[in-house]
Amino acid sequence: MFLKNTWYVAGTPQDIDGKPLGRTICNERIAFFRGEGGQVSAVEDFCPHRGAPLSLGFVRDGKLVCGYHGLEMGCEGKTISMPGQRVRGFPAIKTYAAVERYGFIWVWPGEQSLADPALIPEFEWFDNPAWAYGGGLYHINCDYRLMIDNLMDLTHETYVHSTSIGQKEIDETPCTTKVEGDSVITSRQMSGIQPPPFWQMALRANDLPDDGPVDRWQICRFTPPSHVLIEVGVALAGKGGYNAAPQDKAYSVVVDFITPETETSIHYFWGMVRQFKPQDAALTASIREGQGAIFAEDREMLERQQKNILAQPDRQLLMLNIDAGGVQSRRVIDRLMALERAKPNTAVAA
Amino acid sequence: MFLKNTWYVAGTPQDIDGKPLGRTICNERIAFFRGEGGQVSAVEDFCPHRGAPLSLGFVRDGKLVCGYHGLEMGCEGKTISMPGQRVRGFPAIKTYAAVERYGFIWVWPGEQSLADPALIPEFEWFDNPAWAYGGGLYHINCDYRLMIDNLMDLTHETYVHSTSIGQKEIDETPCTTKVEGDSVITSRQMSGIQPPPFWQMALRANDLPDDGPVDRWQICRFTPPSHVLIEVGVALAGKGGYNAAPQDKAYSVVVDFITPETETSIHYFWGMVRQFKPQDAALTASIREGQGAIFAEDREMLERQQKNILAQPDRQLLMLNIDAGGVQSRRVIDRLMALERAKPNTAVAA
Amino acid sequence: MFLKNTWYVAGTPQDIDGKPLGRTICNERIAFFRGEGGQVSAVEDFCPHRGAPLSLGFVRDGKLVCGYHGLEMGCEGKTISMPGQRVRGFPAIKTYAAVERYGFIWVWPGEQSLADPALIPEFEWFDNPAWAYGGGLYHINCDYRLMIDNLMDLTHETYVHSTSIGQKEIDETPCTTKVEGDSVITSRQMSGIQPPPFWQMALRANDLPDDGPVDRWQICRFTPPSHVLIEVGVALAGKGGYNAAPQDKAYSVVVDFITPETETSIHYFWGMVRQFKPQDAALTASIREGQGAIFAEDREMLERQQKNILAQPDRQLLMLNIDAGGVQSRRVIDRLMALERAKPNTAVAA
Repeated sequence: MFLKNTWYVAGTPQDIDGKPLGRTICNERIAFFRGEGGQVSAVEDFCPHRGAPLSLGFVRDGKLVCGYHGLEMGCEGKTISMPGQRVRGFPAIKTYAAVERYGFIWVWPGEQSLADPALIPEFEWFDNPAWAYGGGLYHINCDYRLMIDNLMDLTHETYVHSTSIGQKEIDETPCTTKVEGDSVITSRQMSGIQPPPFWQMALRANDLPDDGPVDRWQICRFTPPSHVLIEVGVALAGKGGYNAAPQDKAYSVVVDFITPETETSIHYFWGMVRQFKPQDAALTASIREGQGAIFAEDREMLERQQKNILAQPDRQLLMLNIDAGGVQSRRVIDRLMALERAKPNTAVAA
Repeated sequence: MFLKNTWYVAGTPQDIDGKPLGRTICNERIAFFRGEGGQVSAVEDFCPHRGAPLSLGFVRDGKLVCGYHGLEMGCEGKTISMPGQRVRGFPAIKTYAAVERYGFIWVWPGEQSLADPALIPEFEWFDNPAWAYGGGLYHINCDYRLMIDNLMDLTHETYVHSTSIGQKEIDETPCTTKVEGDSVITSRQMSGIQPPPFWQMALRANDLPDDGPVDRWQICRFTPPSHVLIEVGVALAGKGGYNAAPQDKAYSVVVDFITPETETSIHYFWGMVRQFKPQDAALTASIREGQGAIFAEDREMLERQQKNILAQPDRQLLMLNIDAGGVQSRRVIDRLMALERAKPNTAVAA
Repeated sequence: MFLKNTWYVAGTPQDIDGKPLGRTICNERIAFFRGEGGQVSAVEDFCPHRGAPLSLGFVRDGKLVCGYHGLEMGCEGKTISMPGQRVRGFPAIKTYAAVERYGFIWVWPGEQSLADPALIPEFEWFDNPAWAYGGGLYHINCDYRLMIDNLMDLTHETYVHSTSIGQKEIDETPCTTKVEGDSVITSRQMSGIQPPPFWQMALRANDLPDDGPVDRWQICRFTPPSHVLIEVGVALAGKGGYNAAPQDKAYSVVVDFITPETETSIHYFWGMVRQFKPQDAALTASIREGQGAIFAEDREMLERQQKNILAQPDRQLLMLNIDAGGVQSRRVIDRLMALERAKPNTAVAA
């Protein structure tokens, strides 16, 4: 139950640094590696010889060599050579369009003829010296839509992340949700509040007083298939909030690329980009560590929620105003999945 | 395949000391907590908002607060409040009758209109300064009836507990089994034997010689749904055995509350009450430790027996005289389960 | 999907040294123990009393005593005694023909009337002071036929065992495969090559120069049900290769007894017999350790290959010339399995 004719984040260049990577994306077992010329390549993780996972092998001259009997697989899914064998008649294996961009490996798990790199969303901040990015990867046993719900309703911060970014005012401040085409935006503005610990740290990193009051904003944006970007920040109170001048605020974007592994598990690529002190690598590492701890707090909740729901699959859940972001995001997904089923040869999730 | 219109032990007051407890009882996922006024409350472990387990949350002013988005659940299964929400229309969740008594939390997993605290069995020894109790909880992956079999046939002590309470004379002495209404009693009397290590310890604790000979008794009593109480003890030989004067014997009762978690797993509440030196907390701790080690010896046997039986579900097992206690107990259970199915609105296991 | 009317290796005498052994062979749960007179016995691992695994008990005077309630099981599958019981009417349990030979316990999991010890294959090297044997046991989660494939195509050594016995010349040298009745033989001869590390060690152990060149051979022989013996060795180049005089070569036989546990798991008994320095126990231990490390390298590959194949059960695999050994072995197995199904009362895998 996920869109397949679309781009997903599959990993990072480090994951294929000198070795292949085996990873399941949308139920497809895929081996990623650097092909000739260094470009990212992705093929079925299944050796046509005897079914061994190609990702257990090694890369030689841009070819993926099976670690069992030495079959040499090329980027096109065709066997290039095998010791002592004529390989011309070997059956080809499936390939997947894969692109290295923004510090990630992107893969298209669906109909390959539709895989157009131009459909990868654009981000201004990656590969941009005015911004710094730090992030990581968590494997979580839940439906990818539960993670979308999580990120499109930040009232959970008050409870799940009470010691870092949560605060009572998130709960108390209504959010507004709007749909723009295939995007869903949920936003919340809080005025004249005390900054919670994470934002106190960010204020200090911006050479601003950390004892408030501040204005705080959260603008969550879902885009298909399952990306959630969240503009977050605080500005000294009364300086214009989200629109305050850079010297009066700490501003960053939480980046969430949620990639389904199976129906009930995900690869969760989380991170944060910021404009302040982008050259400060120690700050990047510190933020990354803090954010990693925060997102680890979600894991048990999501996995236990998933188990509860699987045990009672027909039970109706509530759809409150705070859930509007998740509800609308699911509607977009459902609409695009219906389109994908109706027209399997059309890329719908651009 | 268990009785549901009856009381089971779900835990102890310590389990809900300042925090909720999530525990599955007879396939029902239940969150236990202290409600307003401090009384034990039990509700479905399923937040009506998005299905998170309520037991991952916390208790505030007698309400159970969901740890995901702050929904506040009351003892009646009705949402009391939620930040920024009108909760009047929220669907109620299931509640379970729960009672704190005898140092345990009792729960009624079945038809709630039938839950009458008067149906909780009476025990003279709990909350009685003339008696001391110590016990613990084990989780075991077996059908609860295999544990009843275990406890209603103590010849296994000779083999499973050979270094503590087992002795050859248990095997050699026939038992007698009788049925009294819904109770089943299996008893065995041994005369002029050497006490095994556990009873040597108890004799010393009673200021009695530990080098025998003694008369020893075991009187196992099953009562529905799945409680087994075992009167055990030794008296100096020839002093009247079970009926000997207190100064001539060491006497205690093994308390076994067997609570089904699923069809093939149990929460096993084990313990012992004794009349001798009830104020001696060190003795209580020592007995508890020894008993815990003994009951841990049963676990592997029961779990491996369960696997063997699941692999050959149609295979007939023997029903010997020593098995009469378990066989009769199962007949009581079967009869009451048939009644429960026929009259779901009648409490049958009182 | 395995032959059952045949002998399999179930364990070693050490496994039943003073205690019973519970082991599943071809889906049969079996308890092995030493009966009266010390002979190996094998019975169902299921106590006729209450289904406990007999292998959790102990052996007393050649009888297997159930560790739950003391039922005493004899080698014939009949209950010999039980405390306080008349056992004459107890149902017998299944017994399995078991033979101790060659330092192994052999078991016949199928129709017992056909179990003829004369059908155990003959080996000249076991119990022969001119030879030394060292070996071990691995449990691997794969179909036994994947292990046969592995051993009948040694080109995998170049990849899986690149630091010990692998070398490029294995890949480059064609093998020849022939079928002789129920046996399949795949052989490869390499001339004038450098010996890889394992064989350098063996040359030194034979007081021969270890810096080559040598002639090397590999002669893999499959026999039903799932044994693979591999004659391996190196001789100083030009001295006659396989047929060189003993003083000019290092020669040994890899012994692989592959015993199905279930459809997708095996007990893999691996080892090596050698003629050189058979009295040198330190050398035996050293070879055993090296071989154990080598065979451990196969495990992950086989288990991951198995998962890949289970995920795509209908996918055709290639059958190259290097696979001929495995392919022909499977044909023998298939033919014998068809015979076994057609004539269940005939031993077909002799």
